[in-house]
Amino acid sequence: MTKLDQIRSYLHDKKADIAVLSDPVTVNYLTGFYCDPHERQMFLFVYSDRQPVLFLPALETVRASQISDVTVIGYDDSENPWQILKNALPSTAGQIVLAEFDHLNVTKFQGLQTVFEGHFQNLTPQIQKMRLIKLQDEIEKMMTAGQFADKAVQIGFEHISLEATETDIVAAIEFEMKKQGISKMSFDTMVLTGNNAANPHGIPGRNKIENDALLLFDLGVETLGYTSDMTRTVAVGNPDDFKKDIYKLCLEAQLTAQEFIKPGVTAAEVDAAARNVIKKAGYGDYFNHRLGHGLGMAVHEFPSIMEGNELEIQEGMCFSVEPGIYIPGKVGVRIEDCGHVTKSGFEVFTQTPKELLYFEG
Amino acid sequence: MTKLDQIRSYLHDKKADIAVLSDPVTVNYLTGFYCDPHERQMFLFVYSDRQPVLFLPALETVRASQISDVTVIGYDDSENPWQILKNALPSTAGQIVLAEFDHLNVTKFQGLQTVFEGHFQNLTPQIQKMRLIKLQDEIEKMMTAGQFADKAVQIGFEHISLEATETDIVAAIEFEMKKQGISKMSFDTMVLTGNNAANPHGIPGRNKIENDALLLFDLGVETLGYTSDMTRTVAVGNPDDFKKDIYKLCLEAQLTAQEFIKPGVTAAEVDAAARNVIKKAGYGDYFNHRLGHGLGMAVHEFPSIMEGNELEIQEGMCFSVEPGIYIPGKVGVRIEDCGHVTKSGFEVFTQTPKELLYFEG
Repeated sequence: MTKLDQIRSYLHDKKADIAVLSDPVTVNYLTGFYCDPHERQMFLFVYSDRQPVLFLPALETVRASQISDVTVIGYDDSENPWQILKNALPSTAGQIVLAEFDHLNVTKFQGLQTVFEGHFQNLTPQIQKMRLIKLQDEIEKMMTAGQFADKAVQIGFEHISLEATETDIVAAIEFEMKKQGISKMSFDTMVLTGNNAANPHGIPGRNKIENDALLLFDLGVETLGYTSDMTRTVAVGNPDDFKKDIYKLCLEAQLTAQEFIKPGVTAAEVDAAARNVIKKAGYGDYFNHRLGHGLGMAVHEFPSIMEGNELEIQEGMCFSVEPGIYIPGKVGVRIEDCGHVTKSGFEVFTQTPKELLYFEG
Repeated sequence: MTKLDQIRSYLHDKKADIAVLSDPVTVNYLTGFYCDPHERQMFLFVYSDRQPVLFLPALETVRASQISDVTVIGYDDSENPWQILKNALPSTAGQIVLAEFDHLNVTKFQGLQTVFEGHFQNLTPQIQKMRLIKLQDEIEKMMTAGQFADKAVQIGFEHISLEATETDIVAAIEFEMKKQGISKMSFDTMVLTGNNAANPHGIPGRNKIENDALLLFDLGVETLGYTSDMTRTVAVGNPDDFKKDIYKLCLEAQLTAQEFIKPGVTAAEVDAAARNVIKKAGYGDYFNHRLGHGLGMAVHEFPSIMEGNELEIQEGMCFSVEPGIYIPGKVGVRIEDCGHVTKSGFEVFTQTPKELLYFEG
């Protein structure tokens, strides 16, 4: 069943006649076509019984016409998009209209309500549910994105120097990635030294890499429409034993959670598997964020791996496992791999070693 | 009058009791505090008669507590944000609630409707109106952003070589900007050679810079919370006379519009000032986009400088003037400066020369 067929099947289940997709990422997910319409309008209309319609700015229609089995309608800036839709689309009076409530602002919603007289229901949970379980072709793309993340962190390692600033290393990583054809990182690359790494929301600056300290890299790339995300913390010079012990503890937590993951356990249990290791050692208060987040076409998706989330882990789910221990003024460590749930366990997308690596400054 | 006072004054005009700000950029605009809550909730509540309340994830409360004269309320992932708000905020039954309809998704809107029993009205037009007219401190920040754009395009010029690819030059520009402390470009930097420049939506690739052709740079940076945006087209080697003539025509259109701008003319007239130059020469069909867009904290804001927009230009408005002529398979030229409207004219933020510059490949 194609992804569009899954939507049609859901329309049937909900006795609805039309699904309105407004998130450009969802449109890409369903059709393979990506377009950011900025402040203009773009919607994909999926019907139970007729060909889908993609409505978007006229400038984009040539590119969109390459999608097979979709009717493309463009509009100019001087035209009223809602009026065009009202004229072009069949009446929906009295019917159920499914729309992405999490990716539809109130202004667009009011516009759609002038087009469709039906009763609106939220489609977001179903899209999230579909995107929650990755198909084999998606997992292969995420493996490729992971390989590029491994390369990126390797480039970071090669640029470690006491003469370099955090932003120098960020720039070197992104420069080399661009040269390898990566046009976009998943998020702003983080390179954080010493106390800056002890802040889970630290921002790379023009401060130089510290000696006898830990150095944290958090990065990912976008490729083939999918994202990667990984964190490694390494030693520069010879950090004191306390820092090394905290590193070991964080690694133990990370590996414990990774080994725990398999279909049938809950997201909360996965979080607890890592958290209990850190709690038992007395540092629970310093691990002050959830264990992980889903990722796929976006770098933050479902499932959320956290306390209170009783969602059952299933084969095909992809998410991060990233415990961190942040002791202000002393040390900051985070170790993160993303992976996919297999029939019996968890296979990670990134292969950079995790025993503490030492670099000369 | 501070920006928060402007909101209070607008509440008074509208006989409304509360304004709910949900766009992180608006929150930054009003308070100087920036936070991207991702899928979590963040709202700034501005009252006519009591201190504003900033509601956001607990992780961000320490940073937010630095804002003066704002009450900060945090929530944990395990808590229900709507219930906390309902308990913490005064009742609004029967009152008017102003909200940013263009930056509020239907799910959040439904959440707010469980908190506030009042009648919701759209605040977006007023925020757009405020952001449309830049204050002196904002214009100074945009001048700084413009100076960095000039530096960035200069770096691009220094890397022109027939051995370099488009993406090599993009990477070199962004690398040098990072080293100068710029953490974010306004948008993906464009370097387009030859026929690729003839596509207004071209994407830089691994193709080498062409000789005897034009080369287009479109870029901007974000700094101090504000953006810049500029385009220059230069000659590599010795392009033929046709290409040079198209360049001259585009420049004439750009300068004509720039000189035309002053308070009192309309956005449509500014667009027409440039467009008529190109039309008269017979190339009107090859200038297939609006003349310009507003910019400020975002790289696309109001005003839109286009046909049909009868908005009157006022002192303090900031926007781009960017005519382009794209003849597929032959030549592509765009020249763009952004600037602010003064008492009597238009002052640009970018100073890179506009006579056709020649580079050896």
